[in-house]
Amino acid sequence: MSAAGPESGACPPVCAADVERLAAARVPAEVWDFVAGGSGDESVQAANRAALDRVRLLPRILSGTGEADLSGPLLGSTAAMPAVVAPMAYQRLLHPDGELAAARAAAKAQVPYTICTLSSFPLEDIAAIGGTTWFQLYWSRDRGQVLDLVRRAEGAGCEALVVTVDVPVMGRRLRDMRNGFALPRSVTAANFGAEPLTATHTRQAGASAVATHTGLAFDPALGWGDLAWLRENTTLPLVLKGVLDPRDAARAAELGAAAVVVSNHGGRQFAGAVASITALPSVVDAVAGRCEVLLDSGIRSGTDVLRALACGADGVMYGRPVLWGLAADGEAGAGLVLDLLRTELQEALLLSGCPDLAAARGLAAVLG
Amino acid sequence: MSAAGPESGACPPVCAADVERLAAARVPAEVWDFVAGGSGDESVQAANRAALDRVRLLPRILSGTGEADLSGPLLGSTAAMPAVVAPMAYQRLLHPDGELAAARAAAKAQVPYTICTLSSFPLEDIAAIGGTTWFQLYWSRDRGQVLDLVRRAEGAGCEALVVTVDVPVMGRRLRDMRNGFALPRSVTAANFGAEPLTATHTRQAGASAVATHTGLAFDPALGWGDLAWLRENTTLPLVLKGVLDPRDAARAAELGAAAVVVSNHGGRQFAGAVASITALPSVVDAVAGRCEVLLDSGIRSGTDVLRALACGADGVMYGRPVLWGLAADGEAGAGLVLDLLRTELQEALLLSGCPDLAAARGLAAVLG
Amino acid sequence: MSAAGPESGACPPVCAADVERLAAARVPAEVWDFVAGGSGDESVQAANRAALDRVRLLPRILSGTGEADLSGPLLGSTAAMPAVVAPMAYQRLLHPDGELAAARAAAKAQVPYTICTLSSFPLEDIAAIGGTTWFQLYWSRDRGQVLDLVRRAEGAGCEALVVTVDVPVMGRRLRDMRNGFALPRSVTAANFGAEPLTATHTRQAGASAVATHTGLAFDPALGWGDLAWLRENTTLPLVLKGVLDPRDAARAAELGAAAVVVSNHGGRQFAGAVASITALPSVVDAVAGRCEVLLDSGIRSGTDVLRALACGADGVMYGRPVLWGLAADGEAGAGLVLDLLRTELQEALLLSGCPDLAAARGLAAVLG
Amino acid sequence: MSAAGPESGACPPVCAADVERLAAARVPAEVWDFVAGGSGDESVQAANRAALDRVRLLPRILSGTGEADLSGPLLGSTAAMPAVVAPMAYQRLLHPDGELAAARAAAKAQVPYTICTLSSFPLEDIAAIGGTTWFQLYWSRDRGQVLDLVRRAEGAGCEALVVTVDVPVMGRRLRDMRNGFALPRSVTAANFGAEPLTATHTRQAGASAVATHTGLAFDPALGWGDLAWLRENTTLPLVLKGVLDPRDAARAAELGAAAVVVSNHGGRQFAGAVASITALPSVVDAVAGRCEVLLDSGIRSGTDVLRALACGADGVMYGRPVLWGLAADGEAGAGLVLDLLRTELQEALLLSGCPDLAAARGLAAVLG
Ligand SMILES: Cc1cc2nc3c(=O)[nH]c(=O)nc-3n(C[C@H](O)[C@H](O)[C@H](O)COP(=O)(O)O)c2cc1C
Ligand SMILES: Cc1cc2nc3c(=O)[nH]c(=O)nc-3n(C[C@H](O)[C@H](O)[C@H](O)COP(=O)(O)O)c2cc1C
Ligand SMILES: Cc1cc2nc3c(=O)[nH]c(=O)nc-3n(C[C@H](O)[C@H](O)[C@H](O)COP(=O)(O)O)c2cc1C
Ligand SMILES: Cc1cc2nc3c(=O)[nH]c(=O)nc-3n(C[C@H](O)[C@H](O)[C@H](O)COP(=O)(O)O)c2cc1C
Repeated sequence: MSAAGPESGACPPVCAADVERLAAARVPAEVWDFVAGGSGDESVQAANRAALDRVRLLPRILSGTGEADLSGPLLGSTAAMPAVVAPMAYQRLLHPDGELAAARAAAKAQVPYTICTLSSFPLEDIAAIGGTTWFQLYWSRDRGQVLDLVRRAEGAGCEALVVTVDVPVMGRRLRDMRNGFALPRSVTAANFGAEPLTATHTRQAGASAVATHTGLAFDPALGWGDLAWLRENTTLPLVLKGVLDPRDAARAAELGAAAVVVSNHGGRQFAGAVASITALPSVVDAVAGRCEVLLDSGIRSGTDVLRALACGADGVMYGRPVLWGLAADGEAGAGLVLDLLRTELQEALLLSGCPDLAAARGLAAVLG
Repeated sequence: MSAAGPESGACPPVCAADVERLAAARVPAEVWDFVAGGSGDESVQAANRAALDRVRLLPRILSGTGEADLSGPLLGSTAAMPAVVAPMAYQRLLHPDGELAAARAAAKAQVPYTICTLSSFPLEDIAAIGGTTWFQLYWSRDRGQVLDLVRRAEGAGCEALVVTVDVPVMGRRLRDMRNGFALPRSVTAANFGAEPLTATHTRQAGASAVATHTGLAFDPALGWGDLAWLRENTTLPLVLKGVLDPRDAARAAELGAAAVVVSNHGGRQFAGAVASITALPSVVDAVAGRCEVLLDSGIRSGTDVLRALACGADGVMYGRPVLWGLAADGEAGAGLVLDLLRTELQEALLLSGCPDLAAARGLAAVLG
Repeated sequence: MSAAGPESGACPPVCAADVERLAAARVPAEVWDFVAGGSGDESVQAANRAALDRVRLLPRILSGTGEADLSGPLLGSTAAMPAVVAPMAYQRLLHPDGELAAARAAAKAQVPYTICTLSSFPLEDIAAIGGTTWFQLYWSRDRGQVLDLVRRAEGAGCEALVVTVDVPVMGRRLRDMRNGFALPRSVTAANFGAEPLTATHTRQAGASAVATHTGLAFDPALGWGDLAWLRENTTLPLVLKGVLDPRDAARAAELGAAAVVVSNHGGRQFAGAVASITALPSVVDAVAGRCEVLLDSGIRSGTDVLRALACGADGVMYGRPVLWGLAADGEAGAGLVLDLLRTELQEALLLSGCPDLAAARGLAAVLG
Repeated sequence: MSAAGPESGACPPVCAADVERLAAARVPAEVWDFVAGGSGDESVQAANRAALDRVRLLPRILSGTGEADLSGPLLGSTAAMPAVVAPMAYQRLLHPDGELAAARAAAKAQVPYTICTLSSFPLEDIAAIGGTTWFQLYWSRDRGQVLDLVRRAEGAGCEALVVTVDVPVMGRRLRDMRNGFALPRSVTAANFGAEPLTATHTRQAGASAVATHTGLAFDPALGWGDLAWLRENTTLPLVLKGVLDPRDAARAAELGAAAVVVSNHGGRQFAGAVASITALPSVVDAVAGRCEVLLDSGIRSGTDVLRALACGADGVMYGRPVLWGLAADGEAGAGLVLDLLRTELQEALLLSGCPDLAAARGLAAVLG
């Protein structure tokens, strides 16, 4: 971490896995399980990693520039690199400063930060930090509440609405069930009132309180019609997060979505899902430039970002590693994780002869 | 298991593998080997698992229903989910209540239960439990005995005849041979008289008494002609269990079979067999809707069932996990295993945006 | 082994791997290394196993016969199963009765036995045992000696000449080099006089005496012309052992070879060779029925034999497992290994619905 | 090693991995890490090995020669085998005699030796040893210094200029960063004056001093134009080292390059690179004979060289194993490693029926 941090003296982390180890040592086991775990047999996470590893790139040479410009537009505003902090609920589980710390780190790194419906600080407090923020929307059973959240996000200056479309119900996360996981009292869904949120704090043997709450609070029947309605009721660009089938991607583009996120939710939702990187090229083809395409699930390094770009993505959402950084050292830790990503991506572009992101998207990939 | 069960206090099983562990701790090693083992080098079981894992699905989104209807017709009657308890001999090996307990669990779960020729309770007693039952037929050397069994099954109200076509002889199951496995006195082939069934109880070094008995009792020369004869002599729908080559599947359809089960018998018969999920799509093509297509061998979760559906199956037969449940906690254990399957399949459909089984069959699959 | 054998009481071996374990416990480590080892990094053996395992077959059903006829012609005479004992040098390393014991076991099993140029009993003594014998020819630097051996083989009643074409020099077998392996005094190349055979007994640090001897004795410059000359000088059918490229297979057929053996010498020669089963189908296509096609290298069970047949082979050569049997229990052990193979193949045919070898060759295979 | 070497008594190394073990035991851990390590997650090294292993060859038979001529032209002069010692910086890290010892071994083995820009003896001293030498060029930020080095290389009799094109910046080698690796005082970049080379000796926590120096000294903006300029300013044949994309290979050929080296720098540079052997065939196609094609990255044996030839390479660069030899026993060790390679390649050609390199290039390969 930082020189003044608790690990000073030792070598600072040089890759995300180093931060992961630090984080694992700091948070309670059941919180670790909540973050690290997936649904079912957790084979989706393994599939994500394996599929990313199989994407082997053919670097170019002699670009003649010696520089790599990582910046580019994401949904209209410019990001310092093609990455967005993924929406991840309840960040106070990892550090007392939670979302505030993570959002500060993102702002410094000049990448958008996605505020969650289930953030553990109020969305307004997070947005007030500055930097580009997007707002992730879970669809409440009460449509009034949906509109209320949208208006609050608009009011707070969020620049996009990320509608999560792969959580009609929460995936069956066996670790949380085995742990009878519930949120500690200190962590709440701060965008909501007290009820029915106490569900998140009620331990049940063999069940995840977070899943129980999700079932109570959010509408499993979200449909294309609701999205069209939302499209009518906000001027914010819409992002559909959790798209894997190219037919759905095409439909999202037709609906006027500004972006889709090709994602299997980091293996936390549908336990039989394809690796997101495997699904990416067909989605890119299907939207045919009509909207942006982001990717998440398993991105752990700048090399992984470059893989995504070479397979056609406009950028990535960066997930768990940001939480690792947060757990390890709060804002500084989250910042370090984003710095590592930028440094790695910078190197990856230089070493693959790409002066900019457009060149990166022209790299050839083979499955090794 | 159930709150009152022997594991109360601990977290109840959350997946079939949990039940497997409980079961393994309860049954004698040689019974465990009989259930878990396969023929030859047991690579078929590994191939089944690996091939299922490679089937990665592209979930759909925004179905707009929030519900998933798992029910559908199987051979004419409606099942609560597209699953049938596979025929598995000698269930009293696992629990004193054996088939009675398992059939009760199936009836409660509203899925068909397949009574075995080699059931350890008389078929009539099992059928009397209620619920949909099918009858699995091993072809006795004595054709009179075949007809007798068919008439008894008809009389008992079984709704289909499942003719096992992959056991001309029993596979070479090395564990049973090494154990010199024989049935304990308490477990008999209850549909038959005493002779030559005592063969099942006679220990021989280096041989499986169950295999010896199968060789004595059943006709290795079963042929298409016999099936045609059977077709003439019963009004029950015929199911051919153990079909892997599409040429045979087409012929079964031409013969008027109501269904084929794409199966390698859970790795217990031909030791060089293809994974059943690998063989499935060609069989589906070959029968071209003329009969139903079920799949078994390696199904362990709702995700696996969804894989089978996405590859074209009308449903699955659920095998060893039901025995694990039976061993762990009798009827309650078998019921829990079926409940888990239903819960998992329900979630899998919801999370893949499928309101019903037809939608599930329309999911795209890639080999990861 | 046999009931009277040293393992009586315990369960007799039920597969070749069981015999392998028994053998490994009986022979000196350096002899074991000589038998088990391969050249270079020994990846060829692993490739053989992996490639065989990937061949997954689609069994047929309802053949209606209940029997499987394993017998068929191999080079004109009938074998009880489509297998030949592979030529393997110096069998007295494994058991005092060496080739005599192995040939007796083969004769009883009614499969051809291939006598080696480097047999440790004189070829005449081995041939005198009866049964079908073939003679494997290493090409001496002295062509007179070649012709002498051919005449002796003819005189002794051998029914085919197997010319090994993949040993211009011996492969670099690192185990033997590390062991400084040399033959014990009791084991000699019995078909030759004393010189230069003492080379086989002279230990050298970092070198294999067997390799040294091979280099001294045999002609590395063997060519197609020599084969044509041999073709003129004997009426015995010629078998070319060690063919992997289909161009060579076609040329062998044009030369009038009666058979080719698709083989990588069990991984003991060219360290970069393809798995023989992978090379098989192209060879079968290339010879287009003009000669027989055998396969060896990695065959360990009846299932493996069936794999070879389904991929187009007329039969297999059975290698190391015969030596394991010999080491474990002399003639009885070799016999047991051949019995196991026959039993397994019998079962494999029955379970895949094949009444005979022609049906076996019609099975469909997929790469799993 | 040699009979008189420190390991005398024990079996001498029989493959490169044996030498690796000896070397690992002799050099300080951080030097070992510098040599063995790669960039990022080091998956490129694993990919190189796996991809080479998958190339399985179909040997030919009955060549009728008994000899294999390994010699052939490489950039105009004849090499005893199709191998060049790869440029590897700072060889005094491994042995006090460093480049002098390695170059002597190469000269004895009659293969070209590539002198590095970052050699730890002056290039003139190394070239004075005799034998064919090539000079590897890192492009200094000061173009005068580039020309100066080129003139010195020409003057010293180097026969080719190898321009490394995959190091615009140094790869992120995590081991070196963790070790805070810096060169010991005894090892310097001997072709340069003292400044800014002291950077190589300055330890920094979390950073590699070698990387720091590379960043200070060399121009990250090297472009095709610079190569064209170099082409004008020397009569030496130009080799571009680090080409993976066929578009770049074609452009190199158009520029008049005498050769390209298909290389991922042994996994030390771009961490997402394809295995070089995987990239090879497309490069060979793209240059279409207009220039020579060499390959490096993962070559460890004669079998690997043959794989490269069969995939279309004219030869290989031999990397880390030469350093292992150097570390283990100086010139003798490097010589032994080259001897092993020659012996293995000789055997590989003989055993695959190839009388010469042209035949080797005609071998068929399949991916196993
Ligand atoms: C602890 C945790 C909480 C998450 N919460 C949400 C959420 O509230 N909404 C959402 O759309 N995605 C959520 N995600 C999914 C992430 O947005 C992202 O898709 C996923 O983490 C990507 O996988 P990766 O972390 O393995 O790269 C969460 C992920 C984690 C790890
Ligand atoms: C202990 C046991 C007994 C079985 N007995 C029979 C039987 O009598 N008849 C039959 O057709 N299949 C029998 N089977 C095979 C099953 O019907 C089914 O094909 C197989 O279990 C599917 O594989 P899985 O259990 O790995 O999913 C048996 C399986 C087991 C495990
Ligand atoms: C100890 C041993 C000695 C062998 N000697 C010979 C031989 O003299 N001539 C020959 O053509 N093949 C020889 N072989 C190769 C076999 O004929 C056969 O090709 C090989 O064993 C097949 O591989 P597998 O044993 O792994 O199935 C020998 C193999 C072994 C294991
Ligand atoms: C310690 C070390 C130093 C190296 N230094 C250089 C160098 O200065 N210039 C260069 O072009 N390549 C350098 N290389 C890369 C080699 O030339 C070669 O591409 C690489 O070692 C091939 O991979 P392999 O060693 O795994 O076969 C170096 C490699 C190593 C291991």
